[in-house]
Amino acid sequence: MHFPGAHILSVNQFERADVEHLFDVADSMVPYAHRERMTKVLDGAILGNMFFEPSTRTRLSFGCAFNLLGGEVRETTDIKTSSISKGESLYDTARVISGYNDIIVMRHPQAGSVAEFARASRVPVINAGDGPNEHPSQALLDLYTIRKELSSHGQGIEGMHIAMVGDLKHGRTVHSLSQLIQLYPNITFTLISPTELRMPGEIVEELRNNGHTVIETEDMEQGLVGNDTVYLTRIQEERFSTKMEADVYRGRFRLNEAIYTRYCQPSTVIMHPLPRDSREDANELDNDLNQHPNLAIFRQTDNGVLVRMALFALTLDVWQQIERTSREVNWYTERRF
Amino acid sequence: MHFPGAHILSVNQFERADVEHLFDVADSMVPYAHRERMTKVLDGAILGNMFFEPSTRTRLSFGCAFNLLGGEVRETTDIKTSSISKGESLYDTARVISGYNDIIVMRHPQAGSVAEFARASRVPVINAGDGPNEHPSQALLDLYTIRKELSSHGQGIEGMHIAMVGDLKHGRTVHSLSQLIQLYPNITFTLISPTELRMPGEIVEELRNNGHTVIETEDMEQGLVGNDTVYLTRIQEERFSTKMEADVYRGRFRLNEAIYTRYCQPSTVIMHPLPRDSREDANELDNDLNQHPNLAIFRQTDNGVLVRMALFALTLDVWQQIERTSREVNWYTERRF
Amino acid sequence: MHFPGAHILSVNQFERADVEHLFDVADSMVPYAHRERMTKVLDGAILGNMFFEPSTRTRLSFGCAFNLLGGEVRETTDIKTSSISKGESLYDTARVISGYNDIIVMRHPQAGSVAEFARASRVPVINAGDGPNEHPSQALLDLYTIRKELSSHGQGIEGMHIAMVGDLKHGRTVHSLSQLIQLYPNITFTLISPTELRMPGEIVEELRNNGHTVIETEDMEQGLVGNDTVYLTRIQEERFSTKMEADVYRGRFRLNEAIYTRYCQPSTVIMHPLPRDSREDANELDNDLNQHPNLAIFRQTDNGVLVRMALFALTLDVWQQIERTSREVNWYTERRF
Repeated sequence: MHFPGAHILSVNQFERADVEHLFDVADSMVPYAHRERMTKVLDGAILGNMFFEPSTRTRLSFGCAFNLLGGEVRETTDIKTSSISKGESLYDTARVISGYNDIIVMRHPQAGSVAEFARASRVPVINAGDGPNEHPSQALLDLYTIRKELSSHGQGIEGMHIAMVGDLKHGRTVHSLSQLIQLYPNITFTLISPTELRMPGEIVEELRNNGHTVIETEDMEQGLVGNDTVYLTRIQEERFSTKMEADVYRGRFRLNEAIYTRYCQPSTVIMHPLPRDSREDANELDNDLNQHPNLAIFRQTDNGVLVRMALFALTLDVWQQIERTSREVNWYTERRF
Repeated sequence: MHFPGAHILSVNQFERADVEHLFDVADSMVPYAHRERMTKVLDGAILGNMFFEPSTRTRLSFGCAFNLLGGEVRETTDIKTSSISKGESLYDTARVISGYNDIIVMRHPQAGSVAEFARASRVPVINAGDGPNEHPSQALLDLYTIRKELSSHGQGIEGMHIAMVGDLKHGRTVHSLSQLIQLYPNITFTLISPTELRMPGEIVEELRNNGHTVIETEDMEQGLVGNDTVYLTRIQEERFSTKMEADVYRGRFRLNEAIYTRYCQPSTVIMHPLPRDSREDANELDNDLNQHPNLAIFRQTDNGVLVRMALFALTLDVWQQIERTSREVNWYTERRF
Repeated sequence: MHFPGAHILSVNQFERADVEHLFDVADSMVPYAHRERMTKVLDGAILGNMFFEPSTRTRLSFGCAFNLLGGEVRETTDIKTSSISKGESLYDTARVISGYNDIIVMRHPQAGSVAEFARASRVPVINAGDGPNEHPSQALLDLYTIRKELSSHGQGIEGMHIAMVGDLKHGRTVHSLSQLIQLYPNITFTLISPTELRMPGEIVEELRNNGHTVIETEDMEQGLVGNDTVYLTRIQEERFSTKMEADVYRGRFRLNEAIYTRYCQPSTVIMHPLPRDSREDANELDNDLNQHPNLAIFRQTDNGVLVRMALFALTLDVWQQIERTSREVNWYTERRF
């Protein structure tokens, strides 16, 4: 992929070399995200952060990533405040908005909408989630986290064992992550879900066709055994027709310290795309693991900032100018990264 | 008009010399809006972008214009989040908010509210639309666009022929634009609308009294003949008492390529304040004209940024310092302006 | 108190020396807030302005204060847009959000929520109001205003007479302000309220135990006599179970010019936390006092910016670097501070 000026719409755009280039750039962002140094490399540039559906975490992550590179952020957070309700086409919206900004991040409830918007946009567009379809920066930050966590144990992605747990039918993140992991050879996927919420057949088939091992099971305990990474997901309540229907599955699979200690390897990395549902009847990932050194869920969101900084730096082609525009941070920064 | 510190509330404030000064400053903003150069002339200044009624396009246009001059933007986008619902007067709101910002852009659903706010404000206020009343920056960007488009054909505003089409009764933009065009002599206005949605009589009378020619008609095809500019408008659904009442008029006048080719001069500029209603039953300006070189609707919104940058630069009196604080842009900027 | 890295959650954290240090730093912010000079001391830092409940004034005040120090602001203004509605705990929210920002300002409808959030946050958190509980920056700006206003009459806080008027039962501001004033000796409090809306007994007792004089009365006119400061409050409609119940008290106590002239000392400072309810049936502080030199209500909100700048500069430990990073302002700044 040629990054400068590219729209980032799907994980399918990425070859392994692209992913690794992106991850290297993300690594170079650490001093800036950790507030050891600051950079103004995008001083004067404007991000249009267009959220036609709420997603506080993703919106803030992209916004802060752009600020950390020195750019400004203009936001739209509510579709009802938009001309679209007056019959404006996405084509028109894109033509207009792309005249204001240097790059656009867009989230939209409809599958395909961001790609349609991008076709009319005059500036690069990053898909921050188009309904049940794609959310490439999430998959990228997940894979980046896996790489980083495993490498701290002296391992790599190649040949790893990963368990995915929960609503694998509706979970956009596990679909995209599976797709992306496949760029590396010889992965063993253990897919743990209720039968009704299994990973879509065509994804399983594709994984197998590409030479990976896929095990499907409803038995969480046994499924957890032997994995390098466990990736938990939330029941996507909003994708069910009724809350009651979703409630059948809420709380079915729960990981806590006792289960982890009994079934997982001592070095198994625990991941979750967040938000996790901590209400008592769900509690899919117990708070008794909060201090566990292998709980990577907050490192995941921290990594999200790094990956998004890298996406901006690459698509706006400033990644090689960052150091030149940087200096030490002068304010209080004692943090616990 | 003396720009420094002035409130921009109405097109009536502007004499022809003011308009031309503003347009010259807007011209000088092109390299910054097109991201050839960047400026920090308003580094440290804060815009209060107060939208007590949704208007994404206008809000983003003002916000980006201020960012492009190097300033910061603080926004309020929802009247329900405001103290006004607790019985606070506009006087109090203005006194307080004007202590936070260097300049305020305000949109409000009530006619006269922005002027009332401005009287109590301690900093310059720009009216971004007060209900059906005024929206001066829209009229200014429209006239700026006409000037620019005609001048690319070697023409000027003086003596031009303009057709205005659609809901001329409720259309705030056509009222204000008519007022502004009058600063130039000898204009021919062809007003094309359903009888019930005719331009208000007092405006027509004023135009005639000032020596302009006004033709009123319900026949769009014949009305289009012989114009330098065609300015289309949306049926202002929200100004009718019921949607059904508005529906009587939606889709009555539609411009498409066939009609354009048959009735308009080959150089006729096509304008629309946007959003245009592209739903099938309205489709007031057909997508088959999207690639037409005379379709100026997206150049209009691009010009909006220039005109708003000029308004900020003039009211905050920095227009002569812009070059001094500028430098080349260092990020990816291949765009299609 | 050691300011660098501290959470600002409650007025109880402050000793008299802390308050005076804060006020001295606030004094040093005047040239920046008044736009005589500008500073970039927090260039590159990001404020997370998290408002899980609307409060335009407070949100803008904190946001502008941070911008005036050169930092960037990322905002969240609606709890419904938040993961919390998907069952996320405040712990998770805090862990994630504190990875994005350098400091967080948080308002939340639930008492105790901000402290809970702060415990999990990796960066300093400032409480901008947690329901009926605390809003320390408001109490600090009120006391700062009292100090400044009295000192312009050659007086100090020690030994002063203050009347508090209105809904003293629900009024969070008067509770916190009372607590803070007590750091100074020998205050006389005259508490004017309907019997049902009296200051909570434990606060009155604490004031008396600490050697202050407390007079409680329902007679506003007599209560006003002999005070250095009169602090009016709004009936906190939203804290009553019905609007009707609140309406019993709305408009019961009104201060206007006639009453002020008749009962107050000529130098009595008039304060109100704003918004004031200017609807006819409330009108707790009449507009006929708007031009009165002792009406300090808009100086209060201006002072809010100074105090918040000081809180940021102290918790992020840059207060001694401000001058070094400053320069003259180059835009139009004729204002009426």
